[in-house]
Amino acid sequence: MEFSKRISTLQPSAIREILKVTQDPSVISFAAGNPSPLSFPSVEMAEIAKDIFENNYATALQYGISEGYAPLRELAKDRLMEKYNTGSEDDDLIIVSGGQQGIELAAKVFLNEGDTIISEVPSFVGALNAFRSYNVNLVGVPMESDGMDMNRLEMELKSQKNVKLVYVIPTFQNPSGRTMSLEKRKRLLELADKYNFLIIEDSPYFELRYSGEYVPTIKSLDKNQRVIYVGSYSKILSPGIRVGLVLAPKAITQKMVVAKQVSDVHTNLFFMMIVAEFLKRHDIDLHIQKIRALYKQKRDLMLSAIGQNFDRRVKVERPDGGLFLWCELPEGYDGAELCRLAGGYKVAAVPGVSFETDETRVSPGFRLNFSLPTEEQIKTGIELMAKAIKTYLG
Amino acid sequence: MEFSKRISTLQPSAIREILKVTQDPSVISFAAGNPSPLSFPSVEMAEIAKDIFENNYATALQYGISEGYAPLRELAKDRLMEKYNTGSEDDDLIIVSGGQQGIELAAKVFLNEGDTIISEVPSFVGALNAFRSYNVNLVGVPMESDGMDMNRLEMELKSQKNVKLVYVIPTFQNPSGRTMSLEKRKRLLELADKYNFLIIEDSPYFELRYSGEYVPTIKSLDKNQRVIYVGSYSKILSPGIRVGLVLAPKAITQKMVVAKQVSDVHTNLFFMMIVAEFLKRHDIDLHIQKIRALYKQKRDLMLSAIGQNFDRRVKVERPDGGLFLWCELPEGYDGAELCRLAGGYKVAAVPGVSFETDETRVSPGFRLNFSLPTEEQIKTGIELMAKAIKTYLG
Repeated sequence: MEFSKRISTLQPSAIREILKVTQDPSVISFAAGNPSPLSFPSVEMAEIAKDIFENNYATALQYGISEGYAPLRELAKDRLMEKYNTGSEDDDLIIVSGGQQGIELAAKVFLNEGDTIISEVPSFVGALNAFRSYNVNLVGVPMESDGMDMNRLEMELKSQKNVKLVYVIPTFQNPSGRTMSLEKRKRLLELADKYNFLIIEDSPYFELRYSGEYVPTIKSLDKNQRVIYVGSYSKILSPGIRVGLVLAPKAITQKMVVAKQVSDVHTNLFFMMIVAEFLKRHDIDLHIQKIRALYKQKRDLMLSAIGQNFDRRVKVERPDGGLFLWCELPEGYDGAELCRLAGGYKVAAVPGVSFETDETRVSPGFRLNFSLPTEEQIKTGIELMAKAIKTYLG
Repeated sequence: MEFSKRISTLQPSAIREILKVTQDPSVISFAAGNPSPLSFPSVEMAEIAKDIFENNYATALQYGISEGYAPLRELAKDRLMEKYNTGSEDDDLIIVSGGQQGIELAAKVFLNEGDTIISEVPSFVGALNAFRSYNVNLVGVPMESDGMDMNRLEMELKSQKNVKLVYVIPTFQNPSGRTMSLEKRKRLLELADKYNFLIIEDSPYFELRYSGEYVPTIKSLDKNQRVIYVGSYSKILSPGIRVGLVLAPKAITQKMVVAKQVSDVHTNLFFMMIVAEFLKRHDIDLHIQKIRALYKQKRDLMLSAIGQNFDRRVKVERPDGGLFLWCELPEGYDGAELCRLAGGYKVAAVPGVSFETDETRVSPGFRLNFSLPTEEQIKTGIELMAKAIKTYLG
């Protein structure tokens, strides 16, 4: 049995072995990317579902169109425009089966084999694997504390061939938690014009801010149709429903719709209708405020537990939002080795190597999730992690 | 803006122009592939949804695993095995976002650019477009009344290079309604061994039989792990929920899971749970029997209306199941021209060219759907179609 080249490049990575430990219920996991179940508006959704089953099931259970449920497209587009000045007359908004599908479709409609796509390092492994599955030249550009190193990016733009796309998570990046500064957002757009590439702005976390000042989306600064904006309801309503969105110039969304049609025809229609109705009936901003308060407390608790327990040689960043804390061991130490040791202490984290464009690189980093664990688990888990660090660093 | 080669090959086809007429509510449409809303078990689903929201929402709205909801995988696998002797110890069953995704993932894990995939002609346009999107050599083999012409297939197997996959819809094929004979199913498996290819058995309609004898699935006859079986809940529960399945040798499902992870992470978890619970609480065979009775009546009504109204030169096949009647104009006439004319008479059908592997070919065929229209619409619509035929044939 001979598999395609594209799928052969996707090896089950070391991360999976390490994460097997999370299946043990006695292990405290900081390895997830999951929101807290407390963030799911289940009562409101249940009520809406009941109404749809009673009054509109013949539509909700039937085939829909690949673009997505029209009222949701409109509500989502209006909200991005009114609240975040994001989107324009030249753009269209389509619904996708989670942000992941938005990223994958963007790759599908633009990348030929051998084309170059550039991403931040470290970056979201789901996106990196989507790009790898198209047999492309995946190039990583290191991040600074205010986002991708733009000078390094320009160097790569000069030397790499056929750079079609630059993929960034500008706000509360996964895994680093960092936010790209306004200056760098503007610079990225200038480079996009100068070197003729498109930007995928992956934005699943941007409304989960706990401190600091709002930074405009790259899309809102874009005057030349350079940005494919990927949004998600996973972190503000529910990830299990697989509902996300893409806001992009019409010529691009048209092609993405054609690609989506052969991928899954359309997104689950019932839940597209639930999300639309939620946006109509409820104040989603109020709902997001509650999630923010919940996660801010967890972030602060984890940071404080780390301050009390971790070896001072471990560098821990304080993100202004999102779901993750990014930590780095001193130079020469391996985050993967620490995560293996941590398994023995019944606590799990994700090693930095999982977020590298070059998977052979040794990364001193590791990622801790604070949205899913309880406060009790955060306290105990950080103590356990501190013990693993002590064992490793000596 | 330069799109990828793969997406540029997917042109918005002539069919879309013709089908625009169906947006006019005064048009009777036989162009859909939709099941009847009467087939949706909405009351049962509503009850299950209520229970999940009350007792299990924290799981149902959270991230799930790419393989799909474990209880559904088991229930679906057991049912295929117990009722249809389909599947073995060497197989695994994964849940996908509709049968379309199963087809697309099979293509993704096996086809390199330039590889050959062979399908029946005519065949399902969604599958053909999925294959086209991988820049492959798509080869069509004509059908006979008992399925793909196996001698022609063997000719192609001898002359084409790198034939990795043969795609068939063996039972109540879309669009022809034809069923592949047992002899041909066995012959196809022999050829798969002899020429070393895999078979995609796309089987969304096989339980919708209204007459004739059950023919075993190709998968149930397979002794050498040659078959990727794609199933769907779209025609027996609901298409809008996008829940389907793939039953295939474990080495293949493993790769498909990796591909699915980058496509959409997982299928809508809430509805995977609803389907699993439906299978536990209710007798799905009884439910399918009711759908069969409904569609048998519609099939017979449409055939009888055609007998009373259509020009005798139009060849109409009588399928033993499925959703479609396949009709052919006399040689030299063009199904697409008829469908354009039909639009003027306020009735819609899908022209045969939409199902061709070679989209430049003129097809005398057209497809009529009988599952969605009401009995009244069937009677009136067939009369209108007969008028369009009369206008065209003279």
